[in-house]
Amino acid sequence: MGRVVIDVMPKPEILDPQGKAVVGALPRLGFDRFTGVRQGKRFELEVEGEVTPEVLEQARRAAETLLSNPVIEDVVSVREASGGRDDAGAGADA
Amino acid sequence: MGRVVIDVMPKPEILDPQGKAVVGALPRLGFDRFTGVRQGKRFELEVEGEVTPEVLEQARRAAETLLSNPVIEDVVSVREASGGRDDAGAGADA
Repeated sequence: MGRVVIDVMPKPEILDPQGKAVVGALPRLGFDRFTGVRQGKRFELEVEGEVTPEVLEQARRAAETLLSNPVIEDVVSVREASGGRDDAGAGADA
Repeated sequence: MGRVVIDVMPKPEILDPQGKAVVGALPRLGFDRFTGVRQGKRFELEVEGEVTPEVLEQARRAAETLLSNPVIEDVVSVREASGGRDDAGAGADA
């Protein structure tokens, strides 16, 4: 069973009140290294069988039409997930 | 300026009403390839300067204590973001 991961973030020019709340709370808890926070959404879509280019294309269209609001959000990534849920560990993005 | 990406997802055994709503809406819009959807959160934390191992460790602790609710959510990834916002494109996860 394949899985597609879709990341949606608020556009840079849009106010992000959730991110603002987090960036205000971080130093109060002793986390002093972060100067800004943006909060977006991550979707995991399960697929019966392989993640083919056609499935990715359908996921891309779903991301643009249903999973994001193009007025205020950007779809920053549509990709096949590899392996388990903890696939990304501490490494850099693909 | 560095950036750390943190992904938080609802635990597999926890009901995810947002994901359920999405998976119900997809086929009505013609997206018929997806059998399940989970919706989580993605955070982008800006860092002054380099993303050092110490910054990543602090981000990991912030993810566990402030950005996720460990009763119902898993921190699935804490990693340095590479390049621009559209860093992940259509490729597989790292």
